[in-house]
Amino acid sequence: MGKALRKLGVLGGMGPLATVDFLQKLIEETPATRDEEHLPVIVYSVPQIPERPPAITGNGPSPLPHMLEGIYTLKRAGVDAVAIACNTAHYWYDDLLREGGVPILHIADAACRALANEATRVGLIATGGTIAAGFYQQRFAALGKTCLLNSTHEQHTLVGPAIGHVKRGELTQAHALATRAAQGLLARGAQGIILGCTEIPLAIEFGQSAVSAHCIDATRALARGCVRWWQDDRD
Amino acid sequence: MGKALRKLGVLGGMGPLATVDFLQKLIEETPATRDEEHLPVIVYSVPQIPERPPAITGNGPSPLPHMLEGIYTLKRAGVDAVAIACNTAHYWYDDLLREGGVPILHIADAACRALANEATRVGLIATGGTIAAGFYQQRFAALGKTCLLNSTHEQHTLVGPAIGHVKRGELTQAHALATRAAQGLLARGAQGIILGCTEIPLAIEFGQSAVSAHCIDATRALARGCVRWWQDDRD
Repeated sequence: MGKALRKLGVLGGMGPLATVDFLQKLIEETPATRDEEHLPVIVYSVPQIPERPPAITGNGPSPLPHMLEGIYTLKRAGVDAVAIACNTAHYWYDDLLREGGVPILHIADAACRALANEATRVGLIATGGTIAAGFYQQRFAALGKTCLLNSTHEQHTLVGPAIGHVKRGELTQAHALATRAAQGLLARGAQGIILGCTEIPLAIEFGQSAVSAHCIDATRALARGCVRWWQDDRD
Repeated sequence: MGKALRKLGVLGGMGPLATVDFLQKLIEETPATRDEEHLPVIVYSVPQIPERPPAITGNGPSPLPHMLEGIYTLKRAGVDAVAIACNTAHYWYDDLLREGGVPILHIADAACRALANEATRVGLIATGGTIAAGFYQQRFAALGKTCLLNSTHEQHTLVGPAIGHVKRGELTQAHALATRAAQGLLARGAQGIILGCTEIPLAIEFGQSAVSAHCIDATRALARGCVRWWQDDRD
């Protein structure tokens, strides 16, 4: 190996299952036939961290110090870039980038790269925190695309509960609710849907449904982005 | 939280898929309904490390310096104990424990804990390196149990190729071969089989087969041991 081995840091634990799902997809997206062709990764998965959505609405403590502790730990461990296996956590992206002092591959950049040029109306399934943060909508606007969101009612009765079910390992229930949230967006004209919460792809993929074909899994897109980052280095 | 949060370190990457499988089983074995009830883990998964089996037979460079680098990195990151998501790597357990200076939960201790008292003939499916290391056989002997191993021919035509297929993501082929290796041990009187290679449970579990009921998954047993370690601290 000519140059020093670049390592990827993964800031996870929000939640733990979504972190494992990201690592699994990182393996699936890596063109490898032998162990040593896979990305070297160091994962910080410490789920003892304040909930992100209440912090964003000002109803809970900030998780930023905990996330920075994770970034610092990964940096000390020698990583060259970080991927955050949680969409909502990207609310603090600018702070993490500035304070952490290590490149962070943005999940929304990776997901938007997967959008078809001809899709002008794009749905987004995400937590209230991610929606409030606005980083997906800003990217859609820059690409000249209209963003379709679930209604407040759908958010409370479908998206939120689906995420909770995934966190409790109840994937059958999660699948039914997440699928209905996606159907709602398709019915209103979405030509593609970004699954912008790491729990939602787990819910959608748990069973067969016609909506899958229209969905972009932000977790898988981030994994693909990390593989590109790793390959660019080796070229 | 009254006392400082204990963290588990995971030395992985040998191979990457087995590491993800261990993390998945760690989640499954944790009685949790919320994110923060899951174990805080830091994972060092760097697959750029010399192959373990040739090193054990004196036909390749030692992976010990790489594994120690992993242990040191985990220790600097603040872990209080380490689990190694690879059976064969336990060949260097004593070195890692002595040089690393951090407790390491031994996968064979965890797996043997799952053996039924009444089982006197126990099968072991493992790499040649693990078999040569002898740490499973020593524990079986201490428990008064006879160890049944696959023949050299089965090792070359079933076990070895099954592990290779898992590492290449070819689980259908891996399943067929690993199942035959287990059937061979059951036919010779094994009353239980320890799957003592982290790739083998992935192969066996990929499809339905009657052998599963007789198998002890060392990876899952290690996960359970880690959960016990974590819970003991909180009690």
